[in-house]
Amino acid sequence: MKVLKFGGTSVGSIESILEVKKIVESQQESVIVVVSAFKQVTDQLYHLAQLASQGDATYQHEFQELSQRHISIIEHVVEPEKRTSQTTKITQMMEELSNILRGIFLIHDLTPKITDTITSYGERASASIIGAVIDEAITFDSRQFIKTVPQFTKHIVDFETTNALIREHFRHELPIVVCGGFISTDKKTGNVTNLGRGGSDYTAAILAAALNASSLEIWTDVDGFMTADPRIIDNTYVIEKLTFTEAMELCNFGAKVIYPPTIYPAYHKNIPIRIKNTFNPTAPGTYISCEKSNDVGKSIKGISSINDTCLITVQGLGMVGVIGVNYRIFKALAKAGISVFLVSQASSENNTSFAVKNSDAELAVKVLDIEFEKEIEQGEMNHALAEKDLATVAIVGENMKRTPGIAGKLFGTLGRNGINVIACAQGASETNISFVTDHKSLRKALNVIHDSFFLSDYQ
Amino acid sequence: MKVLKFGGTSVGSIESILEVKKIVESQQESVIVVVSAFKQVTDQLYHLAQLASQGDATYQHEFQELSQRHISIIEHVVEPEKRTSQTTKITQMMEELSNILRGIFLIHDLTPKITDTITSYGERASASIIGAVIDEAITFDSRQFIKTVPQFTKHIVDFETTNALIREHFRHELPIVVCGGFISTDKKTGNVTNLGRGGSDYTAAILAAALNASSLEIWTDVDGFMTADPRIIDNTYVIEKLTFTEAMELCNFGAKVIYPPTIYPAYHKNIPIRIKNTFNPTAPGTYISCEKSNDVGKSIKGISSINDTCLITVQGLGMVGVIGVNYRIFKALAKAGISVFLVSQASSENNTSFAVKNSDAELAVKVLDIEFEKEIEQGEMNHALAEKDLATVAIVGENMKRTPGIAGKLFGTLGRNGINVIACAQGASETNISFVTDHKSLRKALNVIHDSFFLSDYQ
Amino acid sequence: MKVLKFGGTSVGSIESILEVKKIVESQQESVIVVVSAFKQVTDQLYHLAQLASQGDATYQHEFQELSQRHISIIEHVVEPEKRTSQTTKITQMMEELSNILRGIFLIHDLTPKITDTITSYGERASASIIGAVIDEAITFDSRQFIKTVPQFTKHIVDFETTNALIREHFRHELPIVVCGGFISTDKKTGNVTNLGRGGSDYTAAILAAALNASSLEIWTDVDGFMTADPRIIDNTYVIEKLTFTEAMELCNFGAKVIYPPTIYPAYHKNIPIRIKNTFNPTAPGTYISCEKSNDVGKSIKGISSINDTCLITVQGLGMVGVIGVNYRIFKALAKAGISVFLVSQASSENNTSFAVKNSDAELAVKVLDIEFEKEIEQGEMNHALAEKDLATVAIVGENMKRTPGIAGKLFGTLGRNGINVIACAQGASETNISFVTDHKSLRKALNVIHDSFFLSDYQ
Amino acid sequence: MKVLKFGGTSVGSIESILEVKKIVESQQESVIVVVSAFKQVTDQLYHLAQLASQGDATYQHEFQELSQRHISIIEHVVEPEKRTSQTTKITQMMEELSNILRGIFLIHDLTPKITDTITSYGERASASIIGAVIDEAITFDSRQFIKTVPQFTKHIVDFETTNALIREHFRHELPIVVCGGFISTDKKTGNVTNLGRGGSDYTAAILAAALNASSLEIWTDVDGFMTADPRIIDNTYVIEKLTFTEAMELCNFGAKVIYPPTIYPAYHKNIPIRIKNTFNPTAPGTYISCEKSNDVGKSIKGISSINDTCLITVQGLGMVGVIGVNYRIFKALAKAGISVFLVSQASSENNTSFAVKNSDAELAVKVLDIEFEKEIEQGEMNHALAEKDLATVAIVGENMKRTPGIAGKLFGTLGRNGINVIACAQGASETNISFVTDHKSLRKALNVIHDSFFLSDYQ
Repeated sequence: MKVLKFGGTSVGSIESILEVKKIVESQQESVIVVVSAFKQVTDQLYHLAQLASQGDATYQHEFQELSQRHISIIEHVVEPEKRTSQTTKITQMMEELSNILRGIFLIHDLTPKITDTITSYGERASASIIGAVIDEAITFDSRQFIKTVPQFTKHIVDFETTNALIREHFRHELPIVVCGGFISTDKKTGNVTNLGRGGSDYTAAILAAALNASSLEIWTDVDGFMTADPRIIDNTYVIEKLTFTEAMELCNFGAKVIYPPTIYPAYHKNIPIRIKNTFNPTAPGTYISCEKSNDVGKSIKGISSINDTCLITVQGLGMVGVIGVNYRIFKALAKAGISVFLVSQASSENNTSFAVKNSDAELAVKVLDIEFEKEIEQGEMNHALAEKDLATVAIVGENMKRTPGIAGKLFGTLGRNGINVIACAQGASETNISFVTDHKSLRKALNVIHDSFFLSDYQ
Repeated sequence: MKVLKFGGTSVGSIESILEVKKIVESQQESVIVVVSAFKQVTDQLYHLAQLASQGDATYQHEFQELSQRHISIIEHVVEPEKRTSQTTKITQMMEELSNILRGIFLIHDLTPKITDTITSYGERASASIIGAVIDEAITFDSRQFIKTVPQFTKHIVDFETTNALIREHFRHELPIVVCGGFISTDKKTGNVTNLGRGGSDYTAAILAAALNASSLEIWTDVDGFMTADPRIIDNTYVIEKLTFTEAMELCNFGAKVIYPPTIYPAYHKNIPIRIKNTFNPTAPGTYISCEKSNDVGKSIKGISSINDTCLITVQGLGMVGVIGVNYRIFKALAKAGISVFLVSQASSENNTSFAVKNSDAELAVKVLDIEFEKEIEQGEMNHALAEKDLATVAIVGENMKRTPGIAGKLFGTLGRNGINVIACAQGASETNISFVTDHKSLRKALNVIHDSFFLSDYQ
Repeated sequence: MKVLKFGGTSVGSIESILEVKKIVESQQESVIVVVSAFKQVTDQLYHLAQLASQGDATYQHEFQELSQRHISIIEHVVEPEKRTSQTTKITQMMEELSNILRGIFLIHDLTPKITDTITSYGERASASIIGAVIDEAITFDSRQFIKTVPQFTKHIVDFETTNALIREHFRHELPIVVCGGFISTDKKTGNVTNLGRGGSDYTAAILAAALNASSLEIWTDVDGFMTADPRIIDNTYVIEKLTFTEAMELCNFGAKVIYPPTIYPAYHKNIPIRIKNTFNPTAPGTYISCEKSNDVGKSIKGISSINDTCLITVQGLGMVGVIGVNYRIFKALAKAGISVFLVSQASSENNTSFAVKNSDAELAVKVLDIEFEKEIEQGEMNHALAEKDLATVAIVGENMKRTPGIAGKLFGTLGRNGINVIACAQGASETNISFVTDHKSLRKALNVIHDSFFLSDYQ
Repeated sequence: MKVLKFGGTSVGSIESILEVKKIVESQQESVIVVVSAFKQVTDQLYHLAQLASQGDATYQHEFQELSQRHISIIEHVVEPEKRTSQTTKITQMMEELSNILRGIFLIHDLTPKITDTITSYGERASASIIGAVIDEAITFDSRQFIKTVPQFTKHIVDFETTNALIREHFRHELPIVVCGGFISTDKKTGNVTNLGRGGSDYTAAILAAALNASSLEIWTDVDGFMTADPRIIDNTYVIEKLTFTEAMELCNFGAKVIYPPTIYPAYHKNIPIRIKNTFNPTAPGTYISCEKSNDVGKSIKGISSINDTCLITVQGLGMVGVIGVNYRIFKALAKAGISVFLVSQASSENNTSFAVKNSDAELAVKVLDIEFEKEIEQGEMNHALAEKDLATVAIVGENMKRTPGIAGKLFGTLGRNGINVIACAQGASETNISFVTDHKSLRKALNVIHDSFFLSDYQ
């Protein structure tokens, strides 16, 4: 049994839905199909909730369009004999949704709980319709087995309950089951919750892991992981094979091919992941597994980049020898919920730099200045310094560990091309080297590195 | 007015004491002279305290030698007319010390408070004798103005009280005042305390800052900061000028020329520091100030190295996107009192490496495994991994900021010479780049970097 | 200027509303009238919110009745020329309320914020109607000046903002202003909040204190504080005068004449409170002020009783001399939100008893057994012991302080009548003596004490 | 096997030591004898330590007297054949002690560790001498089996280790073993520690419990527990029997017959305790066991009093209904280490009184005023009020539970005699009723209660 996940663009149009039908029906083994909401539907649902809660009556018009789009898709993709019953089902769903939106409109209030209920209609509708499109498929409601518990302002999966419920629901092997991604319910209250944006990948990985699937296929709109970001440079090509670790490193640094948490359940159960393109189904895609590639010629697998970096530096000559500065830095950041994607401390704790998103910079500086208020006042430390409009580049590959001179090649290439390295970090796992440079040097940096590592003769 | 500090080796023999006399008496402005205990005396005092508290009667013999050495020095360096009174003073001091040692011998116990009292006799004696040696000098007792407050198991300077007392004691300008370094007293109880090993440099810096000295001279037994560790490679030479920041970075990484906390008070008041060699007084030494050198040819100032590095890596595919991992890492390390001198996190918080001393490695791994016990058990994280017997090298220089290609040159040199870079870090201040390599590659690494940056033609 | 507050029963019927009109119009000085929602309206609003949120369509019928009742009252009590405009106002309010209830019905959810909005309609409607009934009265919306801040799950008055806003709103003296009690708004968000059940008394006290009213009159449906609970024993009579402290003690122990927090603002500004009966306006009522009564014949003022007491005992021979047991007991109780109305520890901390409501007993025992788990396991402490179905009686009077033998008289009377005293407490303020007895002895106890202190010759 | 403990007065003179010899040698079963230091020796040792650490040489003279007193006792009580060896032993001990005192004199410092070492010589000497006095006795060194662990500034018994070591040391039954009370050693370091003043009783109870002794006899200088404090009133007599709980309650309230922690180990193992008078060995003493007396005529067993009471009241009309006031009161007291022996809260948490020692009053008021600083400033609470120079009286007896009218009789007696009750408390265990009165009414109160409960006909 394998798990296939189709994202929003794969279920965005009549043509693509029929392509999905073809892909699924051609499988040789039994499959579980996880689908996202139709393209852009989730965004529309958030928008509807906003409009209604602000007392803006135009929400009704927008709702009508959304509703009509679902009905229209049914007419084109569902076979005549199932069409009426399917239309009835979706009409009822839309009626329910309409009532909730009306309620919000009347009370002028919007709680996270109701927002979660509203957005769940996207996957509930798409799963119902795709289930009717595919021959022999039946639809399961993911809310019945994906169970969450609250953690701060988020909902996280309760794996013990979820795995038990999945095994219970899927105890009889069925040829094709369709479920909605993203949606879940609270373990205790039964209220509708969700796994966060991009959560459909995660739903698929959870199902695959719970049921020991033979593989997990993520069907999307690109051919796979690329050697570098194709929107920035040309000449990139699809990476054939990655280890789980390599895939994770590339995802962390901006390759939006899959939702990063997806990798862990598959890695943990050693279930290979295949990235496939719904619009180019014969392309081989990228294969992610625990096997390290023996491709001797290639010391690195890919180049990842984050086009939105602010480097923050906490520095203080008066803090030399004081233990606990990093503790205080990262406590302040963690409490403010700020994610850090590169840390570099080249000497003692009196000088630490780290990279955050530009939009987190102001908050980061503020919480650090509060944390070190006393030391700053006494001149022992400087104000936290934020350098914005930078970019981070990472070269990734588990083979780096066995190949000397990678850092020399990387920084030599950059130096020869006059690209300034503002900060760099390479950890002991030697799976990647990251550096920060000016945002406007990003394209050049990617080009020269890509040429150097992937295209040049002496590679 | 300037402050001159003479270390233990500078006051270690009759010859060197007479050299100190010559240096001080030749000054053109009024001076404060801070002296350490005579060479090896502090170690001897610790040893005496240990012996006596263990009930070992041989301490008496060792004490006699120590006492005799002081008396003998007086006979050789103090002019006849002061000799008797000076001998009486030192004899009384030694009598007091003898009684304390006898007390410890009898109760078989040794508290930190008594240890601090005992070790203070080193500087009390040396300051008294040097004050008698130098013409027109008078001796002040530093315990009367350097005041500390307890902080955990240490004593830290209470600057408000200390600065006020220093200004009070030195309100009349005197040509030459001699004080002992290292020693202090508790602000509240008046008990004798000290500023820690190396604290005489710090005493000098505190006095210089409180009195706005024109400069601070640290007289020691080397000619100054060296371009690299002369015990490891040849061809090193003295660095003429450093900025405060550069000096700090070099100190942090093992250049033991001065006690690192010394730099901050001088930097804060912008008082230049000169490193001078008592045994080669005409050598220019190293001059540390806020001026950046304009020496265009030199992109870096020095190479520092730590010959005792363990790299610890905390890694977990299951922690992707989880904020607060660094917070927990550094909380655990700070609570265990572990000092970290390099941090490198090349992607998200699921993979952080940091360098500690080999002797801290076991404790670090233990506290991290306790901190992440639950995550490790669930397979979300790996056990903290310690790679021992490594070395850290840092290249330092504020000019790096304006010079592209430094990283390329550094890592290119290493790569061409087959030296593996296990981890690296460069922070946004671009004052240094640090990397970790095998301990057995250290000499080679220093040689090739030193050649590349300091000796080669195309520099 | 004085403040008059009329409770729900006082505005419960056409007759009583006309009585309120008469009382207010006969005042000699300018007045502020604070009104509760019409009798039972607040309960109905809570019930409507429940019904609607559970999707029970019968809420509509109940809502119609509520709405109709308000309209009908207008027709009977508002003069013809104001009737139409008043009816329009209330109809609009009811329309708004109807929409909110419909919204809740549609989304099947009910947040505290919306509940607070719904219940506010009771006082908004009553204040509007009463303002139209009384000649020359104008209505102010209390939500504009009573401002709250959140504290845990409650809203508490922000006095600084509230007092400033009250003074601003009432800066011109008007003959008669009517405001709704109970309702308020959040200082920051402007969302509707309230002061809790019974909060109308509190609104009146806040206004009286902010404006330094000459007095505060609480018009209710009883003649005042009684010498004992008239539902339990006969022969009780109205207490003419009480001090603030006595009134507070009686309120704390179950005399539900006024909402306890009401007393503090009046006491703080030394504004006398008069309890009056809307249905018997010529009765003198109870007068509460700072004056101590000189009525020599009366050592006590009243008897209060709580017909719902559980006595919990924490005991342990192994805890003798251990400081901090009470700390742990009351920490556990405070964290569990349990209110304690009597504490008695007759020797060291190894034996403490305290009284709570029967419904809190189970939770109290549980949190204490958790707190002392380790000590209980080792036999150093016993399990917390709960004795249920008890009653607490307090005799109250500030004159007790100057009269010896009160405790003897009380316990002698009880002893002679065979009433067992399970626990007792008398604090240093000597304003009351409390004791705990069997629930089934309560009536007898009240009778014999009342006879002894209020009726017997030898009083 | 039983355990006999002899206090300092019982081993204070030649005559009393010979009395101890007679008592022990006349026992019918094997015994363990626990002895205190000779009368006043512990106080003298503390004083010597103080003198020496202050550099006062007169300590030597005082030390000589102490030493001589021990030698002189040996000469009078030890039989000739053992005299020399015993004198040698004690002379050696005194030599050791002399050296330690000399050490302290020289270093002018005194740590708790050395103080504990010094005071241990009292019991080490007395146990050695008493062991030589009694025929067939051998002496064990309690420091080898009573093991403590540090807790804050105190040492508490580690029962697991201690019980195992006791059983190991006493595995062979010996006719008579003598051990010193009070002294112990740290489980980890082996340093000498002790169980606190009065700790010899506790040593005896620990031994009795560990070895399941048949009984524990505490030999002291009074005939047993008295019906009331004989120093205050006449006509008191010895109480024949008490339960453990009654004994504890009487001890808690000032009956200094035994050290309160002594009772728990005996109670826990149900080992009866007998209080005996060394100077009147035929008197029956007081027998403490788990048996409740059936003596119907006596509703109470004894009257206990504390002649040093300050009643503190925390009161605030603005705190009504606020949960957590007690929590904050007792947190502040516990952190300040203040012991509370009576608590009375007669209504809600806005009015709590509690009794402490007069010497704790100032600190208690201070910590409470700090804790409630904000509330006091806003007038919501009053400053904590301390009423000093009071006395606390408790009547104790487990039979009270079954006898109605005790409170009436107590307070009636007090009222008739014009004695003012300032506060009172009776907990649910109904084992005691406590009240606070003026210090100057104490004698009268004890007299009238004692007459009423113990002497009058109508008892």
